[in-house]
Amino acid sequence: MGLNSFVKLFTPKDKIFYSLFEEVAINLSDMSKVFSDAMHEENEDKRNAMLKSLEDYEHKNDDATHRLFIQLGQNFITPFDREDIHYLASSLDDIADYIWASAKRIINYNIEHVTDAMKAMSKVIVSSVQALQIAIKELRNMKNLKAITDACVKVNSFENQADDILDEVLLALFANEKNAIELIKMKELYEDMEIVTDKCEDAANVIESIIIKYS
Amino acid sequence: MGLNSFVKLFTPKDKIFYSLFEEVAINLSDMSKVFSDAMHEENEDKRNAMLKSLEDYEHKNDDATHRLFIQLGQNFITPFDREDIHYLASSLDDIADYIWASAKRIINYNIEHVTDAMKAMSKVIVSSVQALQIAIKELRNMKNLKAITDACVKVNSFENQADDILDEVLLALFANEKNAIELIKMKELYEDMEIVTDKCEDAANVIESIIIKYS
Amino acid sequence: MGLNSFVKLFTPKDKIFYSLFEEVAINLSDMSKVFSDAMHEENEDKRNAMLKSLEDYEHKNDDATHRLFIQLGQNFITPFDREDIHYLASSLDDIADYIWASAKRIINYNIEHVTDAMKAMSKVIVSSVQALQIAIKELRNMKNLKAITDACVKVNSFENQADDILDEVLLALFANEKNAIELIKMKELYEDMEIVTDKCEDAANVIESIIIKYS
Repeated sequence: MGLNSFVKLFTPKDKIFYSLFEEVAINLSDMSKVFSDAMHEENEDKRNAMLKSLEDYEHKNDDATHRLFIQLGQNFITPFDREDIHYLASSLDDIADYIWASAKRIINYNIEHVTDAMKAMSKVIVSSVQALQIAIKELRNMKNLKAITDACVKVNSFENQADDILDEVLLALFANEKNAIELIKMKELYEDMEIVTDKCEDAANVIESIIIKYS
Repeated sequence: MGLNSFVKLFTPKDKIFYSLFEEVAINLSDMSKVFSDAMHEENEDKRNAMLKSLEDYEHKNDDATHRLFIQLGQNFITPFDREDIHYLASSLDDIADYIWASAKRIINYNIEHVTDAMKAMSKVIVSSVQALQIAIKELRNMKNLKAITDACVKVNSFENQADDILDEVLLALFANEKNAIELIKMKELYEDMEIVTDKCEDAANVIESIIIKYS
Repeated sequence: MGLNSFVKLFTPKDKIFYSLFEEVAINLSDMSKVFSDAMHEENEDKRNAMLKSLEDYEHKNDDATHRLFIQLGQNFITPFDREDIHYLASSLDDIADYIWASAKRIINYNIEHVTDAMKAMSKVIVSSVQALQIAIKELRNMKNLKAITDACVKVNSFENQADDILDEVLLALFANEKNAIELIKMKELYEDMEIVTDKCEDAANVIESIIIKYS
């Protein structure tokens, strides 16, 4: 058996993990952009139609995550620790869940007026997901570790930005909003949007721990 | 040494895990039925007495989970991955916690009128826990993989049903309930009940990943 | 090669984990005491200044947790299971996050009157963190297993105490508080404070599972 056949025999089918993670990252990136575009759409009907379309992205993510877990069960050899793959896939799935949850709240709570803070939050979400996408893409060859680390640092700083927006919004809400039901609606929407960036941070933390181990 | 003695020597004490998981599943099944029966009991005093009795089930679950974790610490050989046993036990424990949390809310919030949505949700919980019980029972011999997969698929679909009930209820609550405190009470109760089905789904996901690995 | 050199060669650099966990435990202990002192400070300005100072402790904790994860990535040999180190560090980090979150709520919600229940809860938090600190300190030599187990049992009982306080407070709030916004503020503050003790319990559970495995 020549070396090539030998290598082929033992070449793990682990490339599939990179492809699936990239598929998820692209879907999340598209999803976050549609979400942000919706938050910047003045026409309420158009905005709600865009928000409703996010359910498809959430389903696509579920599907890719499901395929990731099936591969994880079937492949003895994985490109990095099984538990890291599991955590990373779960965090990415949570990102889609919370973007869709935020969209559903806007629709279900009949939120007509999109505030500046909501727009700002949606932009932070796009930036965070895009930084994550870069980190995931670079995972495949592990050649540009600095690009991965830089992207993860950015994700962390976007989470801080979202946290600051949330703190400011809650402070203003509790100071000014006299209608408790309106306050609840707004509070939950902003909190869900902030959780999107928490989940991005979770994903970035897993990626950081992967590159520390394998570099 | 004959083959029989040899096998006995190396037979892992891992049967204990199946027995403990079955014990937990039976307890959860009984617990969910008492919860649903309480939600269908018209007499408030009787209903509250039934709901209060759920604390005992929650304690029994804690106790069995504790014994599971002790076994996990003491047994080097386990029937499936240690982390899968850990996740499965934790998810099952969460199911009991959230059924008991829902019951406590009904008692503490003085909820006198049980709505149709609450009744429907309680039935979905019973169905989901029973499907989970089938999956857990079949884990022991792994002979009927289709039964396990079918049960897990059902658990996933029950989670979707609970999600739909919650969405509808929240939509109606935010449209109609003018009393914010009543809205908070209802919202939290329904959310906790829906989380029960999320935790069932978590448990089913672990079981699915186990059978993918071992089939 | 003499035995000494051999031992030195293979002596894991794992002592660093004990030191980092102890550093975190001391910081959490200090943090919880400042929090409790603030809750017992009558002067609102002084109280808020003390609460604001907790952000520094939270940053210190983040920093130590970050160094723990870096060590985890770099050390092939760890004193106990990698996933246990990961869980323990995460739980300890959550303790700091929820103490700081509680402090922020008091500041942001403009809570002027500290109730007896808040004072009681803050004392339970201090007791729980201190019990945890004892357990963590004893992990290093594993000689006094009874001290570790006793400390973990205490942490569990403190969680029950916090749970009882929360139940009582919520019962009273929903019975008496007519202002929904005030109710939301109080409910969230008490819930966050109770979560601190949940996270202490999570940490104690990891420690218990470690000593079961290694005893």
